[in-house]
Amino acid sequence: MKQTEYFSLKFVDDKLIFLDQTKLPLKEIYVETDSYERIAEAIERLEIRGAPLIGIAAAYALALSVKNQSPSKSPQRGDLNEITLIFNTACQRLLLTRPTAVNLFWAVEEMKKVFEQKNNSNDIYQILAKKAIEIHKKDEEYCERIGRKGLTLFKQKSNVLTHCNTGKLATGGIGTAFGIIKTAFENGLINHVFADETRPLFQGLRLTAFELEKNGIPFSLQTDSSAAELMKQGKVDLVITGADRIALNGDSANKIGTYNLAIIANYHNIPFYIAAPSTTIDKKISTGEEIKIEYRNKNELIYSEDHPITLENLNAFTPAFDVTPSHLISGIITEEGVFTFPYNFLQ
Amino acid sequence: MKQTEYFSLKFVDDKLIFLDQTKLPLKEIYVETDSYERIAEAIERLEIRGAPLIGIAAAYALALSVKNQSPSKSPQRGDLNEITLIFNTACQRLLLTRPTAVNLFWAVEEMKKVFEQKNNSNDIYQILAKKAIEIHKKDEEYCERIGRKGLTLFKQKSNVLTHCNTGKLATGGIGTAFGIIKTAFENGLINHVFADETRPLFQGLRLTAFELEKNGIPFSLQTDSSAAELMKQGKVDLVITGADRIALNGDSANKIGTYNLAIIANYHNIPFYIAAPSTTIDKKISTGEEIKIEYRNKNELIYSEDHPITLENLNAFTPAFDVTPSHLISGIITEEGVFTFPYNFLQ
Repeated sequence: MKQTEYFSLKFVDDKLIFLDQTKLPLKEIYVETDSYERIAEAIERLEIRGAPLIGIAAAYALALSVKNQSPSKSPQRGDLNEITLIFNTACQRLLLTRPTAVNLFWAVEEMKKVFEQKNNSNDIYQILAKKAIEIHKKDEEYCERIGRKGLTLFKQKSNVLTHCNTGKLATGGIGTAFGIIKTAFENGLINHVFADETRPLFQGLRLTAFELEKNGIPFSLQTDSSAAELMKQGKVDLVITGADRIALNGDSANKIGTYNLAIIANYHNIPFYIAAPSTTIDKKISTGEEIKIEYRNKNELIYSEDHPITLENLNAFTPAFDVTPSHLISGIITEEGVFTFPYNFLQ
Repeated sequence: MKQTEYFSLKFVDDKLIFLDQTKLPLKEIYVETDSYERIAEAIERLEIRGAPLIGIAAAYALALSVKNQSPSKSPQRGDLNEITLIFNTACQRLLLTRPTAVNLFWAVEEMKKVFEQKNNSNDIYQILAKKAIEIHKKDEEYCERIGRKGLTLFKQKSNVLTHCNTGKLATGGIGTAFGIIKTAFENGLINHVFADETRPLFQGLRLTAFELEKNGIPFSLQTDSSAAELMKQGKVDLVITGADRIALNGDSANKIGTYNLAIIANYHNIPFYIAAPSTTIDKKISTGEEIKIEYRNKNELIYSEDHPITLENLNAFTPAFDVTPSHLISGIITEEGVFTFPYNFLQ
């Protein structure tokens, strides 16, 4: 594979083109749409995933929801009411796609603010599209800054363990945890990356492997249950993961298994870091107790693609995320810098 | 499914009938053979697995290796030499199947002792077969005793988390950790079992689920990465797993992920137990440092049945086992009783 010849999503000619991540890495299929409903479905089905990317996709979806609805040059009150109704319906639809990643809620709020200021304008679609592009660009810039700030974590060429996927496929730029790994690699600071396969949907085995390969970074995969053995063997210098929502005290929700990793790293005296843009900090919640954890369909465990691995009537415990208490987190890297315990993101 | 209408292996009419565990639970296919090579292959392919069961299967295989080789009533030296050669070749073949479970090495030693005492007998096959049956029966009895001894772990009706498979499919009887769960359930002491799916080969999702269902025990499955979240939610009262090899100081090798679980249970102040027959204690090694860990083929991660989940050229870290240090183990249950830290199995 050649380097970085892929993108997670692009807004071109008033349409969103996105890479269907459920098919990766075996098939690279891009989908083009201008339907907000199709984008909402893509988020639900995890064709588009990763906390920052979900926010960006939602912003584009909201712009597209009014694309064919702009009022005439002399708008009637009825037209405006209809546009407002459509926009609000789209907001509600998108907010229901996934409950944990706060970037979705943040992006919808940002788009709403713009809509409320400008909803009597005859170029509301253009204004919303501009705002969505701005949200996208901002995340791209944040990723770059996270990557650079993260360089301070490396004292020497290191082995990094990561979980789930946090690269270009999860964000608007080079990634969060992955952005740090990529930047460190380009600065000669990465010896090897250990990527957790990340059950049940294999975001590590499929997506992080795809991105590491595209970037030419040396890596290997392992089951999520291999972390303690890897660390005992002295193979891991630091752990970096992303986050889907961070409370003001630093408690961080991320892909199921992150809390396991934090405990195991702590036991082995290995630093454990979280990387995320400031848009992942939920300023409305003081601790992780308030984070709503999404439960996924048990078929994600029971099936591999469309064939069952086991009995189909089984019960399963299926949280998509867990919350790592902030005292287990050695540092949180945002575009603003590296924060350490005790965290207080209100200051 | 009706209760317990299955068996892992049976010795009938001078043949071994075993259940091919790689096909479970979707297909229950029994294989009949009197070839030691076929049994060795079955152990390598994990058609037969579980530390105690591997030992039992190896014992039957060694008996069968000489089945058609018994000398005539007046044996010639040449006949005996040939039988010895065949038996030793079979021993070597079986010892190479899997390196970690000590029960295999123990069973081969036991069979060798019998062979060496009796190798001039004209009924050597019968004597070896009798010994293999004795090893099988002894394991069955040990499982029953482990189950009863394990009842003391339960102060009240409890929720148990387990990893991998340790039931009838892994032993000659009702199982080790599973034997305790089954006995506790029959004594009204099990509320719910949480079974780790156990990547990469899904022994939990496929085999433990199958056995829990057959026994009518209430349970659910979860990814191996869900343990910390389960424990944080207060859903787990105790953890019990099996072991593949136990050092004299109590350090215990078991399916990859067990060491993770022990650390996580310890962090949450939840007791973590190991259950195994005394034949799993390796009296030749003082600590877990000396345990040889088997590495498996990376395709176990990359493929689901015969289709790839990800890029086929990936590197992977593939230990089949890890070693839990004894200070993280609240108790080790053998047929002799419940031992606690500091362990010293020489006494």
